[in-house]
Amino acid sequence: MNRIVISTGGGDAPGLNAVIYSVVKSSQARGWEVYGSRSGYRGLLELDELVRLTDEQVRDITPTGGTILGSTNKGNPFAMPVENLAGEIHLRDVSDRIMTNFNRMGFLCHIAVGGDGSLEIAHRFAVEKGMPVIGVPKTIDNDLEATQMTFGFDTAVSTATEAIDKLHSTAKSHDRVLIVEVMGRDSGWIALSSGISGGADIVLIPEIPFNVETICRKITDNELHGKHYAIIVVAEGACAEKSGRIHKKTDKSEIGRQELLLGGIGEWVAAKIRKNSGKDTRSMVLGHLQRGGSPTTFDRLLALRFGAAAVRMAENNQFDQMVSLVNGEMEAVPLADAIKQRKKVPLSSDKIMTAREIGICLGDY
Amino acid sequence: MNRIVISTGGGDAPGLNAVIYSVVKSSQARGWEVYGSRSGYRGLLELDELVRLTDEQVRDITPTGGTILGSTNKGNPFAMPVENLAGEIHLRDVSDRIMTNFNRMGFLCHIAVGGDGSLEIAHRFAVEKGMPVIGVPKTIDNDLEATQMTFGFDTAVSTATEAIDKLHSTAKSHDRVLIVEVMGRDSGWIALSSGISGGADIVLIPEIPFNVETICRKITDNELHGKHYAIIVVAEGACAEKSGRIHKKTDKSEIGRQELLLGGIGEWVAAKIRKNSGKDTRSMVLGHLQRGGSPTTFDRLLALRFGAAAVRMAENNQFDQMVSLVNGEMEAVPLADAIKQRKKVPLSSDKIMTAREIGICLGDY
Amino acid sequence: MNRIVISTGGGDAPGLNAVIYSVVKSSQARGWEVYGSRSGYRGLLELDELVRLTDEQVRDITPTGGTILGSTNKGNPFAMPVENLAGEIHLRDVSDRIMTNFNRMGFLCHIAVGGDGSLEIAHRFAVEKGMPVIGVPKTIDNDLEATQMTFGFDTAVSTATEAIDKLHSTAKSHDRVLIVEVMGRDSGWIALSSGISGGADIVLIPEIPFNVETICRKITDNELHGKHYAIIVVAEGACAEKSGRIHKKTDKSEIGRQELLLGGIGEWVAAKIRKNSGKDTRSMVLGHLQRGGSPTTFDRLLALRFGAAAVRMAENNQFDQMVSLVNGEMEAVPLADAIKQRKKVPLSSDKIMTAREIGICLGDY
Amino acid sequence: MNRIVISTGGGDAPGLNAVIYSVVKSSQARGWEVYGSRSGYRGLLELDELVRLTDEQVRDITPTGGTILGSTNKGNPFAMPVENLAGEIHLRDVSDRIMTNFNRMGFLCHIAVGGDGSLEIAHRFAVEKGMPVIGVPKTIDNDLEATQMTFGFDTAVSTATEAIDKLHSTAKSHDRVLIVEVMGRDSGWIALSSGISGGADIVLIPEIPFNVETICRKITDNELHGKHYAIIVVAEGACAEKSGRIHKKTDKSEIGRQELLLGGIGEWVAAKIRKNSGKDTRSMVLGHLQRGGSPTTFDRLLALRFGAAAVRMAENNQFDQMVSLVNGEMEAVPLADAIKQRKKVPLSSDKIMTAREIGICLGDY
Repeated sequence: MNRIVISTGGGDAPGLNAVIYSVVKSSQARGWEVYGSRSGYRGLLELDELVRLTDEQVRDITPTGGTILGSTNKGNPFAMPVENLAGEIHLRDVSDRIMTNFNRMGFLCHIAVGGDGSLEIAHRFAVEKGMPVIGVPKTIDNDLEATQMTFGFDTAVSTATEAIDKLHSTAKSHDRVLIVEVMGRDSGWIALSSGISGGADIVLIPEIPFNVETICRKITDNELHGKHYAIIVVAEGACAEKSGRIHKKTDKSEIGRQELLLGGIGEWVAAKIRKNSGKDTRSMVLGHLQRGGSPTTFDRLLALRFGAAAVRMAENNQFDQMVSLVNGEMEAVPLADAIKQRKKVPLSSDKIMTAREIGICLGDY
Repeated sequence: MNRIVISTGGGDAPGLNAVIYSVVKSSQARGWEVYGSRSGYRGLLELDELVRLTDEQVRDITPTGGTILGSTNKGNPFAMPVENLAGEIHLRDVSDRIMTNFNRMGFLCHIAVGGDGSLEIAHRFAVEKGMPVIGVPKTIDNDLEATQMTFGFDTAVSTATEAIDKLHSTAKSHDRVLIVEVMGRDSGWIALSSGISGGADIVLIPEIPFNVETICRKITDNELHGKHYAIIVVAEGACAEKSGRIHKKTDKSEIGRQELLLGGIGEWVAAKIRKNSGKDTRSMVLGHLQRGGSPTTFDRLLALRFGAAAVRMAENNQFDQMVSLVNGEMEAVPLADAIKQRKKVPLSSDKIMTAREIGICLGDY
Repeated sequence: MNRIVISTGGGDAPGLNAVIYSVVKSSQARGWEVYGSRSGYRGLLELDELVRLTDEQVRDITPTGGTILGSTNKGNPFAMPVENLAGEIHLRDVSDRIMTNFNRMGFLCHIAVGGDGSLEIAHRFAVEKGMPVIGVPKTIDNDLEATQMTFGFDTAVSTATEAIDKLHSTAKSHDRVLIVEVMGRDSGWIALSSGISGGADIVLIPEIPFNVETICRKITDNELHGKHYAIIVVAEGACAEKSGRIHKKTDKSEIGRQELLLGGIGEWVAAKIRKNSGKDTRSMVLGHLQRGGSPTTFDRLLALRFGAAAVRMAENNQFDQMVSLVNGEMEAVPLADAIKQRKKVPLSSDKIMTAREIGICLGDY
Repeated sequence: MNRIVISTGGGDAPGLNAVIYSVVKSSQARGWEVYGSRSGYRGLLELDELVRLTDEQVRDITPTGGTILGSTNKGNPFAMPVENLAGEIHLRDVSDRIMTNFNRMGFLCHIAVGGDGSLEIAHRFAVEKGMPVIGVPKTIDNDLEATQMTFGFDTAVSTATEAIDKLHSTAKSHDRVLIVEVMGRDSGWIALSSGISGGADIVLIPEIPFNVETICRKITDNELHGKHYAIIVVAEGACAEKSGRIHKKTDKSEIGRQELLLGGIGEWVAAKIRKNSGKDTRSMVLGHLQRGGSPTTFDRLLALRFGAAAVRMAENNQFDQMVSLVNGEMEAVPLADAIKQRKKVPLSSDKIMTAREIGICLGDY
């Protein structure tokens, strides 16, 4: 009888439990056993953190948030922080110990559910250690190449859109500019999608450096047309274009440390607008709300399909590959391709065009 | 200045207003005027049903259900029911009058939002009358060829999944078999998607004729494993396989008129289960709940993109074509291709495989 | 150390698990032990159905639907259906056996969560057998005297209102009369509350016998004012006034068996309207959807307060009494008072007045 | 024919439009005319801001957020900021001009929907100027005396509870302490209600000065019981007890300006916990999300009942009074009583007891 192990790594994403459910049920249908590695690779490192997953463990977990495999950010097995007797922290490569345990348990394969960090580690295990690995893409940012969509993204966009919906009435009632900072360090998928759906006036994304004057002009323009409020959606990684150069968030010295002291880019933009336009401007950070809670129906279904497809790949010995959604169907793509680079919003994307055409200012001109 | 007209036809679908919003805003961005034809083609037939759409008309309509263009089922212009003075109803071809009005108004094109019926009429106007037509696909059943997804579908699946979620606790508390009949006369997309997401035990779709004994065996099997309840999702067009032949719903004489008298296929299945297994079995029809209400974020965004893409096609003179979602991006496909046939769930679809693998009985064996 | 037992009886209601959670945690705070009796009194009858409830059992159950104590409709211990060796069903009084077990376990008291049926049984145990009983009122119908509100009601009204919201757009798009049948055999609380909130045109409740002509007149009136659709909310126990006499649903012979054959009162009203007005009229039964799913925040909080208050009553030896909400605070009322009669909607209630004043027809004139 | 005027004042609250709808419909039922004063009293000051409200204006507004009467914070008519020709701002008493307009329009009465500030102004108009005024209580904080509940509160608590629900999974997945700052400057109703419903570990309210050590002890206690995360809900007006004295937020100098620089009380608590316990601690401010969006079914119904009751009071000449919910029914109470003082959470409230009993730390011991 075959036996597989599943782990969930990286940040929280709605749909993780649905993947686990699906992997367990699909394995059962083949008479296979499934083990869950708690806390990322921890279960493969210390066998008392390895838990047998049966019907009992996965009952009713599909619609729940979080992951039943517990805390996910426990470090890279190739450089794991370990405390020695003196209380000092060292980085240690524990990958061989993991391979030993993996082989001792007789696992057919490891299904690694994670974002680009986790998938890169999985790929390294495949290449360097010969572990039969299958990746399941997970990132609420939707910034993974080689798959049309990742689970968790639809839920994050829905949460952000609902927040924007709620802000409309207050912005309007109080003649305010309200800024919502959403996730997206390198890509603007969440900001752009929720900004379009929620009817934002301005959307700022990392792919398009913004100009503060352009933003203020849009707000003044609104006023002239009798609209005395504005909603701005800003991705956490959005950056200002200034004196011909782009100011990245990672390069904080350029915006000025004291300017960013009070908050993220949302608060920075708020301060600029307050100063330039005199409008009552407030910002809020959606933060963890986007990662948590029950997955939308779309994400549930996608996660369940990913899980079942991963087990199908295991059956067909398709290792060092990742489950992927391609034009609505499941496909297997090499892990190496998936992690090559982050998927950014292409400037030619119809979403960018749609945003501009329905009157959303993207901060550039 | 260009001027275009938009109509919405066929059954209600969440997202219609988002398409209208997007068409109006995208046209404004080009300095174009938009008119809405109320009640399908009625506005092109009687000009007082033609309404100029401006900011005022489309403000805040994106998240709303229904269509601001009013009642949608007003007949086929090539065979319109018209009452004569004697009060008799005749079918009359009013297509030429519509073309006259269309030309008199100087419309650049007609954006027809509708399902296969409406798109077929639009195509006929293009071919027979030379009307520059652009189709926007709308069907909550998702059964249109040539597009990966239609708006309204995600909302319908979400509504059905929420209903299934709610039924779980009652089914469990009362040891009952609960049956939900969902939309899908010719295809099982809604039933299959919501059945997988909602954790149904059995899903019956038109593409797979079902066997009552198979269903009852699954229920008995549940009992043996300590699960004393079951949830069944059945598409309205599902049909039983009986004595070697398939009993279609459209061929009611075979199931027996008296058997279907009390309700649809859901109630028919309930009666069979009650008789065969003695279980307390209830059925409900979700009906209009699936068509109504606010679109999900996914559907909002898709509808907004469709609307903007349609105006882009108008700018490029891409007529007799339909907006389509292909692997996540907008494309134009010939209307003729789109309406050739209904898209059924392919038996090789990974959704079918996923359902079976996670333990859902599809009624066939 | 004190030890108490909790049971949940009667139909499903959102919030049952929140009561259990609160009883367990409040007992722990006092160093007490809690046992749950599975399937109503089954756990007190057969001790292997009695389960010790600890943190583990109640973790994360507050927002869930159903009851972790399992199927709730298992009969009255004073007349329990029992199968003998010959397979015949007899009613047996098992109340003494239950008292023996109750005493053997050394329970301080029994917290009985249920509707009027379950509370009546609890009261009988108190009076006839001397069991120290505390009632917690549960009915989604809100028809219990002696408490301002029961948990489950707000969720049921919310579910019904959401359904009505969804039907509006379809009714409007298709010029239809849509009828929703909601729960309420003896009282119209759900129908009236959801009808007002959801903007129904007509609401029919058991407290006010309706007149079909009045209903049809309202629909015609709508038409004259340019509103070509209508939404009707009807409580399952609503009845028509006919030829001077009231036709109760329980007295089906008067409406005519063949007339009610095809469905409940909703379908009956639909048939009448179709015949009288010729309007396209459809009905749907919300049914179990109202009982299931996650409780609203309001119901969660009320259920948690009820549970904690019940344990407080146990500490103060307030037995044969029921937890009650009186003007927003918790009070103890005699069980005898609570079960005297069903709470109907008083005709002088401001909800009745509000309905009429905002233009809702109640079917009477 | 009678004619009344309605205004909405103060901060945004879900349900304002439902009150307006109900006032308009209830007035129509009596053959009365209704006018809306835009931007608080602005419509009574400048008659072009006074708008006749008919069916057309109020169609479908019941479930919407915000207020159709526009921006609400436009100053106190007894001391209105007015700009003179030199561009200087002066406070001017415009109450007489308002009374002149009120009389010239022949209004029977003014229905003032607002919080304690707006109701105080309304009361002053009644007492000093003889305006026939009827108050409708509105505050999402629920801190108005003389009514069991205000509309908007249930929606705010629901929004906060949903946010807490979403944070649970992330807190758990990442072993974090997450802090949510909710509204409540003077009273802890929202914090306490959402904290109980959402299963928070710690709730901090203005009524109970908190002790940082107590909080840290609770977190350590969680750890010892194997729970490596915690959720803290803190009302914006909560304050620390320090060196025997209470540090109010309004008295920031005592907490230290630099400490509060980076954010509100939530961030202050986060910093303390980070320092004392070393736990990864994050805080977020829910802010405007609590004020916006569609009202819950509960709030819709309450708002509709308030509106109808206000018109009933107008009919009975019950002026200088406020609509109030008393044990589930509508009553009229003197405005003077309503505004005497803010309703705080009584320490003897069963909600306080419930919180403690189910294991929530209130920060005091």
